[in-house]
Amino acid sequence: MHNPFVPETVEGWSLLHQAFHLDWRALHALSSAERQAIAAEAAPLFARPPWRESGVGDVGQSILVQMLGHKGDLLLVHARRTFDELSQAQLDVAQTRLFELLVPASSYVSIVELGMYDMTAKIHGQLEERGLAAGSEPFDQAFDEELAIQARRMAPRLFPILPRRRQVCFYPMNKRRGEVKNWYAESFESRAAMMREHGHIGRQYAGRVTQIISGSIGLDDWEWGVDLFADDPLVFKKLIYEMRFDKASAEFAEFGPFYVGLQFDAAELGALLDGRTPALDTSTP
Amino acid sequence: MHNPFVPETVEGWSLLHQAFHLDWRALHALSSAERQAIAAEAAPLFARPPWRESGVGDVGQSILVQMLGHKGDLLLVHARRTFDELSQAQLDVAQTRLFELLVPASSYVSIVELGMYDMTAKIHGQLEERGLAAGSEPFDQAFDEELAIQARRMAPRLFPILPRRRQVCFYPMNKRRGEVKNWYAESFESRAAMMREHGHIGRQYAGRVTQIISGSIGLDDWEWGVDLFADDPLVFKKLIYEMRFDKASAEFAEFGPFYVGLQFDAAELGALLDGRTPALDTSTP
Amino acid sequence: MHNPFVPETVEGWSLLHQAFHLDWRALHALSSAERQAIAAEAAPLFARPPWRESGVGDVGQSILVQMLGHKGDLLLVHARRTFDELSQAQLDVAQTRLFELLVPASSYVSIVELGMYDMTAKIHGQLEERGLAAGSEPFDQAFDEELAIQARRMAPRLFPILPRRRQVCFYPMNKRRGEVKNWYAESFESRAAMMREHGHIGRQYAGRVTQIISGSIGLDDWEWGVDLFADDPLVFKKLIYEMRFDKASAEFAEFGPFYVGLQFDAAELGALLDGRTPALDTSTP
Amino acid sequence: MHNPFVPETVEGWSLLHQAFHLDWRALHALSSAERQAIAAEAAPLFARPPWRESGVGDVGQSILVQMLGHKGDLLLVHARRTFDELSQAQLDVAQTRLFELLVPASSYVSIVELGMYDMTAKIHGQLEERGLAAGSEPFDQAFDEELAIQARRMAPRLFPILPRRRQVCFYPMNKRRGEVKNWYAESFESRAAMMREHGHIGRQYAGRVTQIISGSIGLDDWEWGVDLFADDPLVFKKLIYEMRFDKASAEFAEFGPFYVGLQFDAAELGALLDGRTPALDTSTP
Amino acid sequence: MHNPFVPETVEGWSLLHQAFHLDWRALHALSSAERQAIAAEAAPLFARPPWRESGVGDVGQSILVQMLGHKGDLLLVHARRTFDELSQAQLDVAQTRLFELLVPASSYVSIVELGMYDMTAKIHGQLEERGLAAGSEPFDQAFDEELAIQARRMAPRLFPILPRRRQVCFYPMNKRRGEVKNWYAESFESRAAMMREHGHIGRQYAGRVTQIISGSIGLDDWEWGVDLFADDPLVFKKLIYEMRFDKASAEFAEFGPFYVGLQFDAAELGALLDGRTPALDTSTP
Repeated sequence: MHNPFVPETVEGWSLLHQAFHLDWRALHALSSAERQAIAAEAAPLFARPPWRESGVGDVGQSILVQMLGHKGDLLLVHARRTFDELSQAQLDVAQTRLFELLVPASSYVSIVELGMYDMTAKIHGQLEERGLAAGSEPFDQAFDEELAIQARRMAPRLFPILPRRRQVCFYPMNKRRGEVKNWYAESFESRAAMMREHGHIGRQYAGRVTQIISGSIGLDDWEWGVDLFADDPLVFKKLIYEMRFDKASAEFAEFGPFYVGLQFDAAELGALLDGRTPALDTSTP
Repeated sequence: MHNPFVPETVEGWSLLHQAFHLDWRALHALSSAERQAIAAEAAPLFARPPWRESGVGDVGQSILVQMLGHKGDLLLVHARRTFDELSQAQLDVAQTRLFELLVPASSYVSIVELGMYDMTAKIHGQLEERGLAAGSEPFDQAFDEELAIQARRMAPRLFPILPRRRQVCFYPMNKRRGEVKNWYAESFESRAAMMREHGHIGRQYAGRVTQIISGSIGLDDWEWGVDLFADDPLVFKKLIYEMRFDKASAEFAEFGPFYVGLQFDAAELGALLDGRTPALDTSTP
Repeated sequence: MHNPFVPETVEGWSLLHQAFHLDWRALHALSSAERQAIAAEAAPLFARPPWRESGVGDVGQSILVQMLGHKGDLLLVHARRTFDELSQAQLDVAQTRLFELLVPASSYVSIVELGMYDMTAKIHGQLEERGLAAGSEPFDQAFDEELAIQARRMAPRLFPILPRRRQVCFYPMNKRRGEVKNWYAESFESRAAMMREHGHIGRQYAGRVTQIISGSIGLDDWEWGVDLFADDPLVFKKLIYEMRFDKASAEFAEFGPFYVGLQFDAAELGALLDGRTPALDTSTP
Repeated sequence: MHNPFVPETVEGWSLLHQAFHLDWRALHALSSAERQAIAAEAAPLFARPPWRESGVGDVGQSILVQMLGHKGDLLLVHARRTFDELSQAQLDVAQTRLFELLVPASSYVSIVELGMYDMTAKIHGQLEERGLAAGSEPFDQAFDEELAIQARRMAPRLFPILPRRRQVCFYPMNKRRGEVKNWYAESFESRAAMMREHGHIGRQYAGRVTQIISGSIGLDDWEWGVDLFADDPLVFKKLIYEMRFDKASAEFAEFGPFYVGLQFDAAELGALLDGRTPALDTSTP
Repeated sequence: MHNPFVPETVEGWSLLHQAFHLDWRALHALSSAERQAIAAEAAPLFARPPWRESGVGDVGQSILVQMLGHKGDLLLVHARRTFDELSQAQLDVAQTRLFELLVPASSYVSIVELGMYDMTAKIHGQLEERGLAAGSEPFDQAFDEELAIQARRMAPRLFPILPRRRQVCFYPMNKRRGEVKNWYAESFESRAAMMREHGHIGRQYAGRVTQIISGSIGLDDWEWGVDLFADDPLVFKKLIYEMRFDKASAEFAEFGPFYVGLQFDAAELGALLDGRTPALDTSTP
């Protein structure tokens, strides 16, 4: 039954973020040749997926991020079609020789999600106009059909090829359920209005930042994960600072830890193991 | 004495959840044959219990879950009739060779529980109708008899054979005791109404998800544990998101960490140790 | 000076709770004979104290609990007359060969305490009736004498021989000092009334559970420690759940971590090290 | 689009703070000559930048601080023009032999920032006086030009040569987003007034303390980082205590961990490794 | 400028508290002779300072405390005139052979402080009576002179020889800055009145407990540290329990972890390493 108080969502990639410390002492004990062999063995796990004009990734993808600070040295982001494939991605990493140089630091499990406040209200309205009674089977069936159409339309945002931009920022977040300020006790209309304002600010940054939202209610310790990709890290600071003043964030957002770093190519993993900042080739999509 | 402000509960399995990291470095140092021997030694602890048409597990049972993310690689769920048996299950795991490849990450101790808001009110009413004075010995005796009848009736839900479904989600939770919003300061009727609404949403998901609630007040750090079993992990996200808007959850639920993973057969433990996603045979109950 | 806003307390044993993980890998590397030798060396620290009809333990005592879950495998509870003796008990454990198989997990320092809301009010009343002015030296002297009488009368509860019951539950707790709900800003009468209601529920469980309250304000991170002993762990869950609805708990209690396990005899320590659930002989007091 | 509710900021150095424990056991196992060799190898990473009358650091800089207490023994502060350079600074430290004696304890990623409440209001006013409509392209372009002028003017504060003062204090902080007191829900004017009062107190300490504020919204777990440099650690205590009573701090500031220590010269690193408090030469700028 | 809303403080010793675990496994592997040699090497760091009738410690001092519970086995308290000397004390400990048997557990950095609510008000009043305008240079100069006089007068409390009493309790604390109850938003008069009541209770315990307050705003994670010294640990519990009901504590105090233990003489360090409770000679001051 489609609950009119709950915004509908459509879903895409299953995501696993994995942050690791590098065991530099062990790395120093290896020859550069050994480090390159280790990098070469692991690199295929992070192969670029075939380019698609649609922007839809038909097979899974995993990317590499060199992290800044002590929360980790290496962030892996795995996107897969199912949890079984995601689980295998996790196991594949664990079987590499690289893994013996990694110390797990943290992780995040989520599913790419588009929340649809306006669409939910619109479909409810349209179906009721068509004379379908909310909660009836024909209503629910028509609703499901409409959602399936939306999901197909939004495939490039649900199963995107991960953006090839240098700067990466990931953080989990909640909507506050405080004793006074409680997102889930706000009316649908109030929540929809706040999300509209929030989206309005986000759109001012279109082009400068690419965003992937994933839902993790029931899957991990926060409600959503946010991945941002940009060419300049200042954009993360400016965007999130400005959003902090919109009502949805100011009054209702709770933020988890922030992870930032530099995306790099699989072929550059050896450079990292040798202690050189690894590069990202952004000349091709 | 049966306290009319406190919902009665009936209890079943004692449960122990154990999450472990796998020591992949040590595993890599073993031959595949050694890994298979280690898996074979441990597998009998996770034997399937005899099938029962009643759905009631007459002997204890332990299941295996491959976890996603860094909170652990392997989740064990032990169901036993007593704490002595549960303690022995914990010791049995610790005596295996497998245990030397495990690093304890977390655990949870609880007892399967059915809370009975409506039943509590009903029995109080019926006994008072029969002229028994609340708090009197005959009242309490009649009440105990009625509870025993309920417990027998509910045996398949109190001592269930654990569901053979691929996707598993576990999390602990509290009812909020805030300075403003306090579940335990709400009237019995208000709490009963909220639990009815909460149950109503749950029933919309019947078939798609199997739920086991256990109580842990006085036993572990949260008040309840929730195990969900499904064929598709999206169901966890959809169900818990929708419930977040019901009053019991929106205003009063506090959630602990979420653990998700894939249930698998004891015979597949060796596959996991070799780095392959282990399978679950769901063709038979 | 006896402060009429502060309930008087009388004190008994100094208590040290110590939770340890067992190093199973190291244990597996030992022969069973070595494990038995290690157990035999440590066992005298946990000798049963001489039986006393008074129930008063005249010498110190230390008991053993096999813990459920990952918070530890072994809980030791030491009761001593002074902090110097308690310190020596801690050092004695550290000097055993057993200690080399233990990894400290947590601990708790407290002093057995009986809080006396009703008695405090009563003594204040009686002394004022006798014409003694509160705050005067004769008043304080008479008060001290009365407290000493109470302490002698309560010796079996202040210096109890620790109960020989199988199931053990320990948790620390606070009275809330919130911005809205603040136990310490409630009137003496209001606090006394809440403690009476709280005690009333506790007495319903007399016989089924034995309770030892210790105070730890100024000694450890919570204000009180609670030890419960029972024959059935369900009693912990039922008692604490029911109490959660009384006003003192519902509005003012904050709970720390819960530790549960099975008390066992010193002679059974070797069984535990061999991986068998150790027994408790409850046939004699 | 320049949002009139959000104070504009101009940015300078990218900063990475790294706190490490020293592995004294490993250090003791080395000869003093080996320790000096290790110090000599790492010292060039902390070379003093060329002196500039402008006070603007044209190349990056890294400084050394001996920390007090158990949060770490050594704090490194790296200032660089880009995140790529910052990442390379992090990698360079990890490639030294010194790094094998360091255990990472914590870190902080941020960008030097000047928040401009008064300037933001002033530019909005001036541009509107010039007849430019807020939100229009000419308005935004003129605004960007004005900000660029300000950034050039403030270069010595955005890209400062790090102060050569002995005492160093670092801490991260947030503006509170509570359910009742919420900085981000205050009006622009109210926030501007509070920041003016806050700045007024800070200016009383001019000369006695040098302050560098960096922003970390979207980059690390707190919103801002504060570095203080002084000749006497009492100044930190007096300044921050006095500020705690201004409205911006009293009602809205949330503080993270505080790190204090003694800045020292790269040439003194060997003294530290030998166990002697390393010195700072403050005789030249 | 002397701010009339901020109580003046005068300062004394810089303090470093260091808590360590003892590595008992490593200790057991040593002969008793080796342990005594290790103790003898470290003991001079904890030499008793020369006795002074004034009670003022003219040179620094470090004391030893055997801790109860798992937060540590050994607490060191260092008092020095400057942070440079404190840093050297920390380094001196790290250079001993004893240090190789210690695992750092926690620490605290602070400066002995006397807060002077009444004195602050009194000086403001006197200077204004003398016709000096608050905020003027002559006012500030006269104020500084008066503070210097007070500091000399209070030298025995600012630079005390640390009390030779057996029982030691240390804890850090904050004044609450809640959304409703905020110490820093209370008027000067209200805060002064609460501190008077708080001090009144403390004085009831004069003789039974010796207290050293240190300030750590800007230096460590809490605002103040409290060291208590007594002959009986019950005094800690009784004093802090009674204070919990005064308004300053009930409504505004937030407490960090509590550390308790037994002070002992440097000459007894070898006893501790051998597993015997070390003694304190209190027969001489």
